[in-house]
Amino acid sequence: MRTITLTTDFGDRDGFAGVINGVLACRSPKASVIDIAHGIPRGDVRAAAFVLMAAFRYFPAGSVHVVVVDPGVGTRRAAVAVQAKGHFFVGPDNGVLCWATGSSVDGIVELTNSRYHLTPVSRTFHGRDIFAPVAAALATGTSLARLGRPRRSLVRLPFPRLDVRGGGAAACLSGEVLFVDGFGNAITNVTEAACRTKFGGRPVVVRAAGRGIPVVDAYGSVAPGSPLAVFASMGYLEIGVRDGRACDYLGLKMGSRVSVRRR
Amino acid sequence: MRTITLTTDFGDRDGFAGVINGVLACRSPKASVIDIAHGIPRGDVRAAAFVLMAAFRYFPAGSVHVVVVDPGVGTRRAAVAVQAKGHFFVGPDNGVLCWATGSSVDGIVELTNSRYHLTPVSRTFHGRDIFAPVAAALATGTSLARLGRPRRSLVRLPFPRLDVRGGGAAACLSGEVLFVDGFGNAITNVTEAACRTKFGGRPVVVRAAGRGIPVVDAYGSVAPGSPLAVFASMGYLEIGVRDGRACDYLGLKMGSRVSVRRR
Amino acid sequence: MRTITLTTDFGDRDGFAGVINGVLACRSPKASVIDIAHGIPRGDVRAAAFVLMAAFRYFPAGSVHVVVVDPGVGTRRAAVAVQAKGHFFVGPDNGVLCWATGSSVDGIVELTNSRYHLTPVSRTFHGRDIFAPVAAALATGTSLARLGRPRRSLVRLPFPRLDVRGGGAAACLSGEVLFVDGFGNAITNVTEAACRTKFGGRPVVVRAAGRGIPVVDAYGSVAPGSPLAVFASMGYLEIGVRDGRACDYLGLKMGSRVSVRRR
Repeated sequence: MRTITLTTDFGDRDGFAGVINGVLACRSPKASVIDIAHGIPRGDVRAAAFVLMAAFRYFPAGSVHVVVVDPGVGTRRAAVAVQAKGHFFVGPDNGVLCWATGSSVDGIVELTNSRYHLTPVSRTFHGRDIFAPVAAALATGTSLARLGRPRRSLVRLPFPRLDVRGGGAAACLSGEVLFVDGFGNAITNVTEAACRTKFGGRPVVVRAAGRGIPVVDAYGSVAPGSPLAVFASMGYLEIGVRDGRACDYLGLKMGSRVSVRRR
Repeated sequence: MRTITLTTDFGDRDGFAGVINGVLACRSPKASVIDIAHGIPRGDVRAAAFVLMAAFRYFPAGSVHVVVVDPGVGTRRAAVAVQAKGHFFVGPDNGVLCWATGSSVDGIVELTNSRYHLTPVSRTFHGRDIFAPVAAALATGTSLARLGRPRRSLVRLPFPRLDVRGGGAAACLSGEVLFVDGFGNAITNVTEAACRTKFGGRPVVVRAAGRGIPVVDAYGSVAPGSPLAVFASMGYLEIGVRDGRACDYLGLKMGSRVSVRRR
Repeated sequence: MRTITLTTDFGDRDGFAGVINGVLACRSPKASVIDIAHGIPRGDVRAAAFVLMAAFRYFPAGSVHVVVVDPGVGTRRAAVAVQAKGHFFVGPDNGVLCWATGSSVDGIVELTNSRYHLTPVSRTFHGRDIFAPVAAALATGTSLARLGRPRRSLVRLPFPRLDVRGGGAAACLSGEVLFVDGFGNAITNVTEAACRTKFGGRPVVVRAAGRGIPVVDAYGSVAPGSPLAVFASMGYLEIGVRDGRACDYLGLKMGSRVSVRRR
């Protein structure tokens, strides 16, 4: 029996995530259902794409990841299920799945087979009426192919490019903030691997919000209230402030520019 | 083994819902416990009544729904368990259960049998000391009758009436906002069925907050920032603003008046 | 198979608690995982220590309690597992565990055996890389001793002392606010047992925020908007305001002084 995960912007006051759990309890009672997050900022497809990308690989192979961050619910945006990297993903085709699934997917279907939906399907809550029963079907062994008609591709959400400029002592990696977490830390698209390749493991310094920020080993390496950068839990460079909120202190937000040079 | 659901105003910072889960894990370890919502606005009995009414039917028959929104804890308000519509409901007798249970209940008991409570019962946390162990008892097959003495009725929370006025071209349904969800959408007591009966499926227009609002098929049917009304996931007319918060934009709140006429 | 509980300051927007659940689902798929709280104020070790102390005893004997409130992650603070009072506790050695474990622990190990950690261990997310896999190991029967090298003691977080002054009619218990909960109630370190011993069950009055506050049996015993004190769900004296927020109304916060005298 598979694990089903939920990532939504429903919060915890209206019972929407509870209802999805109810549908799953009826249709795949033995599946283990785990909340990844229900506090994704409302309608923020990029934030959900990031959180899913960061989380899904820590779940058992064959898990079914349901994402309901769906500002276009009830419009002509498709509902899809995707098989990729040994996991299943179910949600709206609005880009929210594609940072996790990556470019080499094993199968995509549009969820056109209403046999696997609740009846009737509402105009505003496809999480309950389509995504939950489809996830239950996948968790109980229904094949992707039965859920609808095959598609070639997903709506793309471009992943911000990390630019490499110059060489030698003047080499520079130029990226941006991907996500600001609840601690106020700004996670960038600068990877430890890219820095290793470009700078050969030599010390580097980050420039963001108009100032130089040291790359250190841990938050505790600088004085309280001071900014720092650290290669954090996903391998991405994260900009923080010890015992503080980097997003407020440095004015960083999704899309803010960041660069890395040799010290 | 039954499913147990939890609907509370405990939030997620104090461990109160966790403690209830702990009691359930000790006393009905095989029951599946599902959170409906823990972010009900503090002490808001009407909001909890609405959320429970909207959610409970999506859970397996025989589920035990525990509601702890209980501003009168420790006073003479009764603690009750109710059997209705194939489900069990456990909570304070303050009206919070009665929109879900409806008027034709199969049984009500006041939870007077202290054998099914923790010892001692505190003055401030009946969720832990009474409702959780009683829910565990129901989930493990204890009959309602053993939990206390029978009662005839529950404290009532009047469900707002939908008034029908006039006829023909001037017919009008007059209702109100039942609930404002976390997206800022205002869910009214105007049902799709009432509109169908009254207007024979002809297009209608909603008047709320002093303005006419079109009834459409989906949020995406209007321009971003524009108000709309849609028969939403429970069959109730919901007033929203595309990519915005209707409650703020239109000044709608619980109890705000809404009417529907033929276009 | 054991129960695993989670107490963190991760909130519900970033997927951090979800990832910990994913690691547990991979490594101890049959354990039952229960959230105590994920909304501990960020980095507030005392709040987490209080919530854990209040909650853990309601879980089945042998439960594994994981606490990740860890502002010093990646510094030289140790990671530990503790056996005490028939439960296991896993977290950073920053004082967060010690109100729950108390002074007579059955075993402490520093989590130095990397065989039970994810590879590589990140600098910023030991919840995922160390505490979760260690909890899974304990839940599946691994002995404490295998997880690392024994330690004698934990970093202490002093529990505020309740001072007893004077005797007879002028006797006074002098304490402080331990925790302010999400309802705005201020929980103090004044216990019902201490009052019984000192005042022989005679009526007492609390002085806090410069005013006298009656000790009553329930929130409903005073008029709406009035302050009250009640021996609450943990046996500690709690100061509240009926239908209001005592912390705002009375200006109480963690550490505020409170005294109790005979009426």
